[in-house]
Amino acid sequence: MIRIPEYKDIADAHARISPFVHHTPVLSSKSINEITGASLYFKCENLQKVGAFKFRGATNAVLSLSGAEAAKGVATHSSGNHAAALALAARMRGIPAYIVMPRTAPEIKKKAVAGYGGIITYCEPTLEARESTLAQIVARTGATEVHPYDNFFVIAGQGTAAKELIEKEGSFDLIMAPVGGGGLLSGTSLSVSSLLPGCRVVAAEPAGADDAFRSFHAGILYSSEHPKTIADGLLTSLSERTFYIIRRHVNDIVTVSEEKIVEAMRLIWERMKIIIEPSSAVPLAAILEGKVNVSGKKVGIILSGGNLDLGKLPF
Amino acid sequence: MIRIPEYKDIADAHARISPFVHHTPVLSSKSINEITGASLYFKCENLQKVGAFKFRGATNAVLSLSGAEAAKGVATHSSGNHAAALALAARMRGIPAYIVMPRTAPEIKKKAVAGYGGIITYCEPTLEARESTLAQIVARTGATEVHPYDNFFVIAGQGTAAKELIEKEGSFDLIMAPVGGGGLLSGTSLSVSSLLPGCRVVAAEPAGADDAFRSFHAGILYSSEHPKTIADGLLTSLSERTFYIIRRHVNDIVTVSEEKIVEAMRLIWERMKIIIEPSSAVPLAAILEGKVNVSGKKVGIILSGGNLDLGKLPF
Repeated sequence: MIRIPEYKDIADAHARISPFVHHTPVLSSKSINEITGASLYFKCENLQKVGAFKFRGATNAVLSLSGAEAAKGVATHSSGNHAAALALAARMRGIPAYIVMPRTAPEIKKKAVAGYGGIITYCEPTLEARESTLAQIVARTGATEVHPYDNFFVIAGQGTAAKELIEKEGSFDLIMAPVGGGGLLSGTSLSVSSLLPGCRVVAAEPAGADDAFRSFHAGILYSSEHPKTIADGLLTSLSERTFYIIRRHVNDIVTVSEEKIVEAMRLIWERMKIIIEPSSAVPLAAILEGKVNVSGKKVGIILSGGNLDLGKLPF
Repeated sequence: MIRIPEYKDIADAHARISPFVHHTPVLSSKSINEITGASLYFKCENLQKVGAFKFRGATNAVLSLSGAEAAKGVATHSSGNHAAALALAARMRGIPAYIVMPRTAPEIKKKAVAGYGGIITYCEPTLEARESTLAQIVARTGATEVHPYDNFFVIAGQGTAAKELIEKEGSFDLIMAPVGGGGLLSGTSLSVSSLLPGCRVVAAEPAGADDAFRSFHAGILYSSEHPKTIADGLLTSLSERTFYIIRRHVNDIVTVSEEKIVEAMRLIWERMKIIIEPSSAVPLAAILEGKVNVSGKKVGIILSGGNLDLGKLPF
């Protein structure tokens, strides 16, 4: 029996994490509205702590532990934003965060996790090595594993971004998010279906990593095999839990080309003066590519993060 | 007799322009606070319409015209953010904006002004040509000239950014802004001296364009001669009007190196995930260079704009 959050759990999460997370701004661009023929409202989780929405879910998971559990710390394997988010959330509660990273992870990611006080264990860059190393650490320390997205509290925490967006800007015709493992999309769809029952939820995914697209349309959970995309936050596969939520509460998933991801990313940088990582650009790319009809509509878009190497821009 | 705005004029400007300008967010970065040992609050005018604070002053100037004046339009010579700001402000009132630009202005600037509906007249790239071309247009059309900073309504409009910052975040020990022609600094210092009489106002200027620094400390108005800096919004000289205000209401002006400007700019991009132009980085550069003592203080910083060519980054 997999435990699925309800809207009440998102509201609880919001009350719990509010003192610790940024209530990120919602920005609009007149020129992007003119280009798309819609009214777009961007929820800027790139301006969240650690530069990504992941800090919401990680903070909720850390704060939901009992005192006895918390004392033993938290653990995860990740080389991305979740690792940094969990490390900072743990530091804010004053507990250890054990992070398993592949030896091959970029230096910039290793430094970020170490900078937030994460206790890093390096392993070989295979899923087996990551999982067995994590299992050993959990057995030794008694730390609680916090999965990047297949976790009740993480999903509830991610849902608070859409909740804030709706509370600030009112009703929407459509709300969009990118989809990788499905944590953000699950939380978003749970908030929207409860707060705005008439609002559609549409996710966008790179064509080069289209497991969620294929799973959603076939009704069968496929995993991501040899994904290839510049949107490096979206390489992961759905879990049973996120797939269950997405099938119930998401209206559509569409795919986009790499070219449009880069074009959408540059458009947001140039017109909105904010830094987003490629994963964040995927929903706007879907609009620019004509995959989603937004004409005349009020559309909310969750910008998921802003972490990338400024020395390696795709334009 | 030069007319100087009072705080009441800034409050009037704010009421006038509020429906048309973005109330830009105020952002903070825990990691930049740790680096500087201060609590820094960044007022993000890079997220303002046209990507710069200039839209506040231009909008106030356009909305302050009588119906008869407005019908004849506005005019300026500029190749920077003021030209785009005046063009958009005029378009919002439905009146013509005549913009004199040097033939040699970057294509990106020409396109921006044209995109906002500005009526461009090209001239030779000399101050004489710019001024004589503008005088001819004003004589022919009856348009009202709106100077980029030596203008009562423009200065009052620029002061609304600091007013919003203080209204949102309360008291400050110190508020900083960059200084070029002095419009932003004048408006900022007028707001601060009225709203927070105990708060210091310190401006920062590139060492390669240090006319305001020299003028302030000598008590004599020097002009900017052969300025050379990456901070291309700060090449201009103070006017008598802005110098008068700055001598009365600014506590200090300091200079910074080009290296620190680039370092501060990159730090804001990386840690805050926002795009700022080099001019915006000058106050933080002064802090990083140890030119301003901010230890333990609450400091407000106006980020002036975010317009630059993404294909030519200095890092």
